[in-house]
Amino acid sequence: MNAITNFTSLIDYLRSCQEKKRVAVIRPRDESTQKAVKLAEDAGFMIPVIVDDEQPETAAALGVQMVREGKADVLMKGLVNTDDLLRAVLNKETGLLPQGKVLTHVTCAEIEGHEKLLFCSDVAVIPHPTAEQREEQLKYMLSLMRSFGIGTPRVGLINCTEKVNPKHFPFTVEYRDLIAKAQTGAFGSCIIDGPLDLKTCFSPEALHKKGIDSPLEGNADGVIFPDIQAGNVFYKTITCFCKSKTAAMLCGPQVPVVLPSRGDSPENKFLSLAMACMNSLI
Amino acid sequence: MNAITNFTSLIDYLRSCQEKKRVAVIRPRDESTQKAVKLAEDAGFMIPVIVDDEQPETAAALGVQMVREGKADVLMKGLVNTDDLLRAVLNKETGLLPQGKVLTHVTCAEIEGHEKLLFCSDVAVIPHPTAEQREEQLKYMLSLMRSFGIGTPRVGLINCTEKVNPKHFPFTVEYRDLIAKAQTGAFGSCIIDGPLDLKTCFSPEALHKKGIDSPLEGNADGVIFPDIQAGNVFYKTITCFCKSKTAAMLCGPQVPVVLPSRGDSPENKFLSLAMACMNSLI
Repeated sequence: MNAITNFTSLIDYLRSCQEKKRVAVIRPRDESTQKAVKLAEDAGFMIPVIVDDEQPETAAALGVQMVREGKADVLMKGLVNTDDLLRAVLNKETGLLPQGKVLTHVTCAEIEGHEKLLFCSDVAVIPHPTAEQREEQLKYMLSLMRSFGIGTPRVGLINCTEKVNPKHFPFTVEYRDLIAKAQTGAFGSCIIDGPLDLKTCFSPEALHKKGIDSPLEGNADGVIFPDIQAGNVFYKTITCFCKSKTAAMLCGPQVPVVLPSRGDSPENKFLSLAMACMNSLI
Repeated sequence: MNAITNFTSLIDYLRSCQEKKRVAVIRPRDESTQKAVKLAEDAGFMIPVIVDDEQPETAAALGVQMVREGKADVLMKGLVNTDDLLRAVLNKETGLLPQGKVLTHVTCAEIEGHEKLLFCSDVAVIPHPTAEQREEQLKYMLSLMRSFGIGTPRVGLINCTEKVNPKHFPFTVEYRDLIAKAQTGAFGSCIIDGPLDLKTCFSPEALHKKGIDSPLEGNADGVIFPDIQAGNVFYKTITCFCKSKTAAMLCGPQVPVVLPSRGDSPENKFLSLAMACMNSLI
């Protein structure tokens, strides 16, 4: 397949697959979730499995149980508090996160004027990723990118400059280790580079002006942020100041979890559903 | 004066003042510095004082000395390494940073679609600001905003959410102290709020969707970032993915210092000069 470079192509691809994923939708009592589910149903790539109960906690537990019983391929949050849903997902006995797996978050953005989709992690879940957590973020993101047809994903590891700085930014040292591991082929075919600032990851012109070399050549498919603060600022900036569309999901649990924020639009929820179903096609 | 809401008005205002600031330009041997200086000279708000020497370190020291002798109102970096210029500025005996003052960085951005200028600190200098350094960042930014005619500046203190989180984000506790101090009038007339995420600072719609109250009402003039990583991602995102113009300068030294990065455009350097001269009008 050709790499999917925008959300329209993603929806077209899913439509063409004619494979309907079963999505357990927890308490779709709000208009925005209902609209998103209707759009996805109409696009033909999912069958909603409505999970409702007067008690949000009960509905969350029921949805999680359906996944464990193999009755749903994706989980989606409706009118439930994030904490309630996460508690059900993370429950050590009855939840969905296999022991030792890391729970994190991947976002995919279509930004007007940028020629392809941009993936990033983590703008919402892990405050200060450890080296192990960062490696998992990278692996989840690579897997998602490959499900979008990107054969050799190109990923930048973000820092404010291209310099390794053990004193102020110890994670830049960890970046070097992660890149070395990637070069052994541990993560399959991919190009990982860093530390790099955001602009040198996405602008060949900025890269050349700085006079630095990078195998990403200013043409990254995605980035890993040093921490949630940097990631969140990126997400909020593109959605506040750029014309952009975004999709997001939790990675780590047995199945993709669509967990929109307060204020996410029906379109964002619909696109997140599409991304989760795409990831679940593999 | 009315608040200046875009860079065209800034240049018009400076032109109308008919006050020419003397700018010590250190080694303007590169085309981009020369273009910026020419633009500023033509706009009528500055007189360049060229400081040149075969040795960049010597030129930097000479420029700093001119400021100390009262012969220049603003300092600007041309073809000199940032480190060389900073060494001269920070020299304890012959430099420009008064004892106890904090050296930091303020950026001003005009983003297409956003109705006014947006100020922020610090995207480039202090890795992890302490509470004291953050207070200085705020004070410098307020002073700059007031020089732009913003009588009661509105500033958001950035975090990934609106929650105070002592465990993962101790700076959010410091935010509360800073806000309490602002409310005593210690910083003059201003509205400071946080922790807030970037979008709730600048979008009334996002604020209302989240269902939270903020005296900024989604209408901030500027933000303070928790650290350089978040700040730098913001700066790189708006300059890479938005149609934007930016100006920046160092704060803390006796006079504003224009210290462009590799790759900054002549326009950016010109606007930075304008901002520094504006700030020096006070």
